[in-house]
Amino acid sequence: MPNDNDPAAARKFFGTARLEAFSDGVFAIAITLLILEVALRPPGSPLEQVLHAWPSYLAYVVSFLTIGAAWLGHNEMTDGLERTDPILLRINLLLLLVVVFLPFPTRLVAESLHGLHGERVYVAMYGLTLLAIRVFGFALGEYARREHLDSPEGAASERGSEDKLLSVIIGYLVAVLVGLVFPGLAVAFYFGIAVYLVVPFREVGRLLFSRD
Amino acid sequence: MPNDNDPAAARKFFGTARLEAFSDGVFAIAITLLILEVALRPPGSPLEQVLHAWPSYLAYVVSFLTIGAAWLGHNEMTDGLERTDPILLRINLLLLLVVVFLPFPTRLVAESLHGLHGERVYVAMYGLTLLAIRVFGFALGEYARREHLDSPEGAASERGSEDKLLSVIIGYLVAVLVGLVFPGLAVAFYFGIAVYLVVPFREVGRLLFSRD
Amino acid sequence: MPNDNDPAAARKFFGTARLEAFSDGVFAIAITLLILEVALRPPGSPLEQVLHAWPSYLAYVVSFLTIGAAWLGHNEMTDGLERTDPILLRINLLLLLVVVFLPFPTRLVAESLHGLHGERVYVAMYGLTLLAIRVFGFALGEYARREHLDSPEGAASERGSEDKLLSVIIGYLVAVLVGLVFPGLAVAFYFGIAVYLVVPFREVGRLLFSRD
Amino acid sequence: MPNDNDPAAARKFFGTARLEAFSDGVFAIAITLLILEVALRPPGSPLEQVLHAWPSYLAYVVSFLTIGAAWLGHNEMTDGLERTDPILLRINLLLLLVVVFLPFPTRLVAESLHGLHGERVYVAMYGLTLLAIRVFGFALGEYARREHLDSPEGAASERGSEDKLLSVIIGYLVAVLVGLVFPGLAVAFYFGIAVYLVVPFREVGRLLFSRD
Repeated sequence: MPNDNDPAAARKFFGTARLEAFSDGVFAIAITLLILEVALRPPGSPLEQVLHAWPSYLAYVVSFLTIGAAWLGHNEMTDGLERTDPILLRINLLLLLVVVFLPFPTRLVAESLHGLHGERVYVAMYGLTLLAIRVFGFALGEYARREHLDSPEGAASERGSEDKLLSVIIGYLVAVLVGLVFPGLAVAFYFGIAVYLVVPFREVGRLLFSRD
Repeated sequence: MPNDNDPAAARKFFGTARLEAFSDGVFAIAITLLILEVALRPPGSPLEQVLHAWPSYLAYVVSFLTIGAAWLGHNEMTDGLERTDPILLRINLLLLLVVVFLPFPTRLVAESLHGLHGERVYVAMYGLTLLAIRVFGFALGEYARREHLDSPEGAASERGSEDKLLSVIIGYLVAVLVGLVFPGLAVAFYFGIAVYLVVPFREVGRLLFSRD
Repeated sequence: MPNDNDPAAARKFFGTARLEAFSDGVFAIAITLLILEVALRPPGSPLEQVLHAWPSYLAYVVSFLTIGAAWLGHNEMTDGLERTDPILLRINLLLLLVVVFLPFPTRLVAESLHGLHGERVYVAMYGLTLLAIRVFGFALGEYARREHLDSPEGAASERGSEDKLLSVIIGYLVAVLVGLVFPGLAVAFYFGIAVYLVVPFREVGRLLFSRD
Repeated sequence: MPNDNDPAAARKFFGTARLEAFSDGVFAIAITLLILEVALRPPGSPLEQVLHAWPSYLAYVVSFLTIGAAWLGHNEMTDGLERTDPILLRINLLLLLVVVFLPFPTRLVAESLHGLHGERVYVAMYGLTLLAIRVFGFALGEYARREHLDSPEGAASERGSEDKLLSVIIGYLVAVLVGLVFPGLAVAFYFGIAVYLVVPFREVGRLLFSRD
């Protein structure tokens, strides 16, 4: 089948099974390691400690939803994917590099967030990591479509997801800038974006209106 | 195949492979991270330290069996599943959010449990997490059945599991309330429920009686 | 297909895919968490610290090979498996319960092993965990064969593995007893058994003699 | 099918599915645990702490790319693999043993690297671990080819990868020796090798020149 005279035919393609399995593993572990950063805040009674740890819970939920949304997007992307090539595997590796990095700024934000005021350096680092996850996710889908690695239906479906991703990237940029002045507000923005990414508005609408 | 005039046909479905792989990964990691919370209790001789750490072992076993039971239920649920949709993937993500959270209250209970007396705030938090795992597990099965995502045989088989889940949810509610007065007793209840969930009584009965 | 008049036909079976995926995940994580227990031993120069940490490395290698051997045995077992049933899934869960527990006594042994003398309580706990891994592995294979869950060829191949497992169980019992007097010697035994389990003598012999 | 008179026919082979799933899991976890070693460097303002932690980030990126490259190589290797045998599974286990070990020297290097000067014992240990990953990766591919476990096309494709691996092994040997005198320079070498392994030059060239 390979033809040495035709450079295009000599391209190396792989199946998508291991890309999916390895990525699933990394997403699953990164999302699970987040719980290691949740800790109580002494001093105080047990109840006070549990309640005062709310920044830990908030950071946990925001990061969990962000990685969860990245996984959902990855799932949609590979759903339409017919094959992978060496470059796609490397872009995927860069995406995973930033996904795996997320627990670190998550811990910094959780430790520094008091009464809705946070440390602005940590919040900016957190926001840039969230942003990078979206940027590489976007690059992954773009590359797959340009190089015709996905099926025609997959390409159509992905275009919709990528428009959403693009608006989210702009949202993160705004939030990072806002966070340089009001770090607590930026965390609220990150939470809102994570919820926006995870909630399937079109589907929820279908459920609500088809039941009237 | 997709038909723009028919809203139902325009729904987006996915295969179940990545839902299963990602969930398997998260369950596997959450269940394995539990061991990181097991620690000795100084001071004392090595033997005393090993024996005095029994609350660690108890909490490890209860949480392991609870996550194990959640995985068994998830396995039964996806066994009858023919396809997934965006909402099912999100309910699944919420289920995983509470499964991953479990190692945190497990650690708190293990550290606070002395001579069958525990810290009631931690025990209540632990019980509510166990309860939330069941509630989202129940919601997952319910949604799959209502939206006809499972095969006819899968739906029949699931109905039995869901009745069991419903009784377990009531059991947890009772145990959480009991734990506000007798925290040690509540942990014993959680242990009992975990064993009840894991032991396949019907199958064990078959084994015992078909051998007479 | 199901027939309500025939109790055997009403038995519930599952495919083996998720049993394998979940077990692979747990084995993979338990084997990887072992590295978290490896640590330097201050005081001293960097070189001295690195060299004095040898009990950490030894415990890491013994536990890695033991879990690796358990995975190899699990792989052989499921290779011949045609289907699973609820009880097999639960025996598998018990096997994973002790596999996941292993990093804990590994840490205790690594911390207490000095100049080939170790703390006998920790070494006994370690040996009993290694033993329990084999016992549940044996039970898993036995149950699969008795309940005819494996294919005929799988059953024949498994019988050989189980004879090996039985001799290993006796070896561990001896090592645990020896360890009550000479803990360092018991660790040497555990190392030897792990090597014995992992090295495929018949295959190595084939390689060596077919090349003469 | 098995024939007792023919030793070759009696060889035991396995499918590649679980080898891939288990390896994917271990690679995914080892690569994710690296983030646990990243930590801030007090004292100083938050910004100073974040910036002074650059050796943590560098070690994280080098180790991430190295494990990522090992996974890419593993993916290429199994892509051409038709079946596995007991010895291949064991060589794979040895490869995973050193992959899992990597987070430990990564932490040591990250902690000891100040202003491009590092502790030479730690840097040498790090380099030898990187080297061992390549050596076992090379052995895995060699064994698969010699024992005809891969398909004809797989064997041809692997030969190219192995030539690259061989040059990398020599590169690591040089870097380890250099590191005994200039530890900071060796880390720069390790970074360069990781980039060289991950960047698909031929593919990038194709992208650049086919677009002119």
